[in-house]
Amino acid sequence: MQRRDFIKASAVLAASAALPGCKPTSGSFSDDLILDWKPYTGKLKYTFTIATYSRTETPLVLVRLRWRDYVGYGEASMPQYLGESTESVTAFLARVAAEVLPRFKDPFLMEAILTEVDALAERNTAAKAAVDIALHDLVGKILGRPWWQIWGYDAALTPCTSYTIGYDDSDDVVNEKIDEASWTKVVKVKLGMGEAKDKRMINLIRAKLDTVICVDANQGWKTKEEALEMINWLSERNVSFIEQPMAKEDLDSAAWITERCPLPIIADEACQRLADIPRLKGAYDGINIKLMKCTGMREAHKMADMARGLGMEVMLGCMTETSVAVSAAAQLSPVARWADLDGNILLANDCFSGMKLTDGKITLNDKPGIGVEPVKPFEEL
Amino acid sequence: MQRRDFIKASAVLAASAALPGCKPTSGSFSDDLILDWKPYTGKLKYTFTIATYSRTETPLVLVRLRWRDYVGYGEASMPQYLGESTESVTAFLARVAAEVLPRFKDPFLMEAILTEVDALAERNTAAKAAVDIALHDLVGKILGRPWWQIWGYDAALTPCTSYTIGYDDSDDVVNEKIDEASWTKVVKVKLGMGEAKDKRMINLIRAKLDTVICVDANQGWKTKEEALEMINWLSERNVSFIEQPMAKEDLDSAAWITERCPLPIIADEACQRLADIPRLKGAYDGINIKLMKCTGMREAHKMADMARGLGMEVMLGCMTETSVAVSAAAQLSPVARWADLDGNILLANDCFSGMKLTDGKITLNDKPGIGVEPVKPFEEL
Repeated sequence: MQRRDFIKASAVLAASAALPGCKPTSGSFSDDLILDWKPYTGKLKYTFTIATYSRTETPLVLVRLRWRDYVGYGEASMPQYLGESTESVTAFLARVAAEVLPRFKDPFLMEAILTEVDALAERNTAAKAAVDIALHDLVGKILGRPWWQIWGYDAALTPCTSYTIGYDDSDDVVNEKIDEASWTKVVKVKLGMGEAKDKRMINLIRAKLDTVICVDANQGWKTKEEALEMINWLSERNVSFIEQPMAKEDLDSAAWITERCPLPIIADEACQRLADIPRLKGAYDGINIKLMKCTGMREAHKMADMARGLGMEVMLGCMTETSVAVSAAAQLSPVARWADLDGNILLANDCFSGMKLTDGKITLNDKPGIGVEPVKPFEEL
Repeated sequence: MQRRDFIKASAVLAASAALPGCKPTSGSFSDDLILDWKPYTGKLKYTFTIATYSRTETPLVLVRLRWRDYVGYGEASMPQYLGESTESVTAFLARVAAEVLPRFKDPFLMEAILTEVDALAERNTAAKAAVDIALHDLVGKILGRPWWQIWGYDAALTPCTSYTIGYDDSDDVVNEKIDEASWTKVVKVKLGMGEAKDKRMINLIRAKLDTVICVDANQGWKTKEEALEMINWLSERNVSFIEQPMAKEDLDSAAWITERCPLPIIADEACQRLADIPRLKGAYDGINIKLMKCTGMREAHKMADMARGLGMEVMLGCMTETSVAVSAAAQLSPVARWADLDGNILLANDCFSGMKLTDGKITLNDKPGIGVEPVKPFEEL
């Protein structure tokens, strides 16, 4: 779309703004699906440390998908360990724009569009999620409704999000992070650094806070006996569940732990996509669904339905990401027992507004699509 | 709603009809969800015979759900063998109207409303489906879109429906039914009456038609060896799949047959609801989803996603029912490999228009909700 067309489109958009949900009657719009993207460096408020590495910023790619006078926003977040980068994501998006979108004039063909995007290449799940989120935002805006409502959910049933306290060798730094987390109802802590370091983190938190703690072991525990012993110790300290106690490939140990331990065991690294879920039944009590791992909202919605249909718990997680991807994930939160959607709070430069927290509880807004607004025009972000 | 209010509502509806998808701005409507129902006797074009009984008419209950100026239609179909009757359905609907709906002012709370309807009593799946279909029709109309589109499907991908040729002892009657089926691309035949009768039906059809045949054994074959022998015979006669070869409880025999036979084996009686699917994986190649068994469109949609997620095939079936329930099921048909949605064609007194067939292929319309219209006002049906 040329600049002059964009201005024309904006004028018609303003004229039709009084009729939310109505299709524009003007014939001046193209039916093309137009995809734009721009790399964006997320700045972390605190240095972030888990079992395997530390970082101070995170690469993101922001996405805009336009159709007629509607605009949808999406985002890819690429933590290093997932194998995607700004280069791989923008290359993938260029292929989506060149090879998939030109064959579709109707954004409602979500199953077909997203199946073709998925088939372009293996993995690239964050890039795929960026397209999926933007398409959902766009279609939700055409429908004039937020996705939590289109999916038939009750916004009152959202959980509180947990807020992650990252590891640090300095007690002072950890205590500062704990103070920063005093607003939250649920603290999440990354363990799996060895017994002494793990217990030190819990003890530091418990010296200041009596809120519920969620534990993410990030595959860090080495043997099932070590894991079970640690979980038993944690279970006496108001911990609500344990994520990924051991290596993702080790289903037998997960099942052994799940059978014996008093806390729910949740699959994170072991659960990437829909097809992973059936074999996790019996080995884990639930799954952590993350848009950047599962290719986006459409597959996440199916995963939540399948997990619940199999009698498994649903948790929602995120990467460090702006309010775009966090608000997209939050659309599913009324059916999640637990949510860890603090990615935008961890950013010093979130460039969208969207889902809010009220006393730690996820608060969905009534805006259509994923309910986000950029803080300034997309071109200037 | 009183008659005067109804007329007022109609006037505002007409005034807002030029703005599809827009909510009415008038404040004159109640936010109550108002449920009406009326028993309706479906007259069969032909006497219908399966392995266990014969009939010439079928009891139905038509349902209307109103909210503000929107109207949704639903339907329960109660074939004798499912254990529901006009009395049980109307009693259940009276409980829905008295105990569930008064607590909801927002039809978008579909998960909560339908969960409460489901929890009112065990079984009653046709009565539950009637409420579910009417609610989907209503919400789809508020969204201004058909459900196949809200679900993101491609209407071009619908399958052809099969058309059932019922059993009869008279060759003349069967031949008349075969002639009646000459328009269809796929014939379905109910077997399980014993080898001689089963082979006679297939031979009569093959003497006149070379179209694909779907076989529903309705649990009629007595041993797995008998079933396999019959299926091998059928596989040489252009048969596409076999439904429910043996008793629904006998998973081991189903698995034994599925492993050995050249045709896909589909669970029908063995698959009622979402929770049944996981244990069917491995024993059957696919499932037959019927709204009257699974409580309606919401669960049917989850079942289709779960089955496909588990690598199983999806078939859509129906009872003898009007275009209301058939059109509701048809919304899912783009993700079904096979469809047996001929219930409305088997009726001599279908009182709605909706999904059409084009040369046997399911043809979805663009009308919102489930895309149906009564042939005259609901009160006069």
